Amino acid sequence: MKIARYLYQKQIRYGIVRGNVIHPISGSLYETWEEAGEPVVAGDVQLLAPLIPNKLIGIGLNYAAHAEETGKPIPDEPMMFMISPTAVIGPEASIVLPNVDDRIDHEAELAVVIGKRGKNIPAERAADYILGYTCANDVSNRVLQKKDGQFTRAKSFDSFKPLGPVIETELDPSDLEVVCRVNGDVRQKGRTSDLIHSVPELIAHISSVFPLEPGDVILTGTPSGVGPLSPGDQVEVEVEGIGVLTNRVLGPLDDMAL
Amino acid sequence: MKIARYLYQKQIRYGIVRGNVIHPISGSLYETWEEAGEPVVAGDVQLLAPLIPNKLIGIGLNYAAHAEETGKPIPDEPMMFMISPTAVIGPEASIVLPNVDDRIDHEAELAVVIGKRGKNIPAERAADYILGYTCANDVSNRVLQKKDGQFTRAKSFDSFKPLGPVIETELDPSDLEVVCRVNGDVRQKGRTSDLIHSVPELIAHISSVFPLEPGDVILTGTPSGVGPLSPGDQVEVEVEGIGVLTNRVLGPLDDMAL
Repeated sequence: MKIARYLYQKQIRYGIVRGNVIHPISGSLYETWEEAGEPVVAGDVQLLAPLIPNKLIGIGLNYAAHAEETGKPIPDEPMMFMISPTAVIGPEASIVLPNVDDRIDHEAELAVVIGKRGKNIPAERAADYILGYTCANDVSNRVLQKKDGQFTRAKSFDSFKPLGPVIETELDPSDLEVVCRVNGDVRQKGRTSDLIHSVPELIAHISSVFPLEPGDVILTGTPSGVGPLSPGDQVEVEVEGIGVLTNRVLGPLDDMAL
Repeated sequence: MKIARYLYQKQIRYGIVRGNVIHPISGSLYETWEEAGEPVVAGDVQLLAPLIPNKLIGIGLNYAAHAEETGKPIPDEPMMFMISPTAVIGPEASIVLPNVDDRIDHEAELAVVIGKRGKNIPAERAADYILGYTCANDVSNRVLQKKDGQFTRAKSFDSFKPLGPVIETELDPSDLEVVCRVNGDVRQKGRTSDLIHSVPELIAHISSVFPLEPGDVILTGTPSGVGPLSPGDQVEVEVEGIGVLTNRVLGPLDDMAL
């Protein structure tokens, strides 16, 4: 099942996508809901990020080939950091580069959406706590990432976390293709079977430290091939079985113009 | 004005503290509120953390003497990271050390509570966005902090972020004494006049990256003298003009016992 969040008649709604039609739902995604209201044609509405995360948790260096390209050793445990949820944007929204002199990279990733609260979740029960999966672009300012050491600032600028286009609830995350294209050229291509720490292992690890909660999002790490974005680029993240997350890239703008 | 959050007749309430009495309020701390209901004697209720933060933002190495004791260079810009808000506990609650073999340190800090949403806030207008101030203990697992490089895990374990006892709304943050005592012995003693990046500068810096929102909390950094906690310790953080945040320290426990 594919869940979309969208703007229709100036209201934010959730709906189930079947073919080219979105069937609106009422209730809570995390508790109970039912279809209610008139279906809309997907092309007639503006898709939004499928959620504004509660906690937004990133995992560093989780593909060996990407760890190699950064020159860092592979961590023996998942390396976690947190990103401001205010950085999230949806499909077709613009990634704004606040400083075009810094190198700002795309990072295509599988994102996991948590559906149920849990602490100390065993890896073999991780699936019970997952609502579904979406695509993410973990846009990162490399200059500030290196300068700070801590990744939060480099990854938390407004518009740096495109999510979407939908949450797919029926998906086996163990071997999915993750692709990034810039202006149609393939820049990253990996498979989640190459994740050093699998999705269930990440959930076990993170929830051994603090509880995962409904609406938390985990960015599982990016495969090799990261590279810079420039104003005018069109960047696509595609995860097999979910869809394509497309965003254009703009240069610095007055905040008022957004 | 001192604002307390407390448990009374199984309900969580906010109130204004005057002398030894808490006067309950109704409404929103961030919008409008009024006193409503019967006052209670402070000693008759359980004080809770004065808020569960929306975003919980930490600042590293913000006192020169602490940067020196860690052997790290002083950052020329504030070094920000994020902590899971689930780690927050209130006054008199227990800090639980999940692994007594690791060194787990106290860090006394002035915490800033944001009252109003703002992006690109100029330092000279920072006060308009601050609801008030509270005391924080930024408890940190040094082994994991060093291992991960990223600070999120080391500082996000359940119970690692005591806040309280109250939010003080009328306070000049520029020269306050910040003290940590363990079992009555003074371990840390600093003044916010020694902050490398002052409270207004932190607000300008962070809000240049992402919006600050009502309920966000900024931990402003810790003075020198950090040191390990052990089961059985009683640790106090006192910030001039706010009050004393007292917590006891326990060893590993079954989660069911908490």
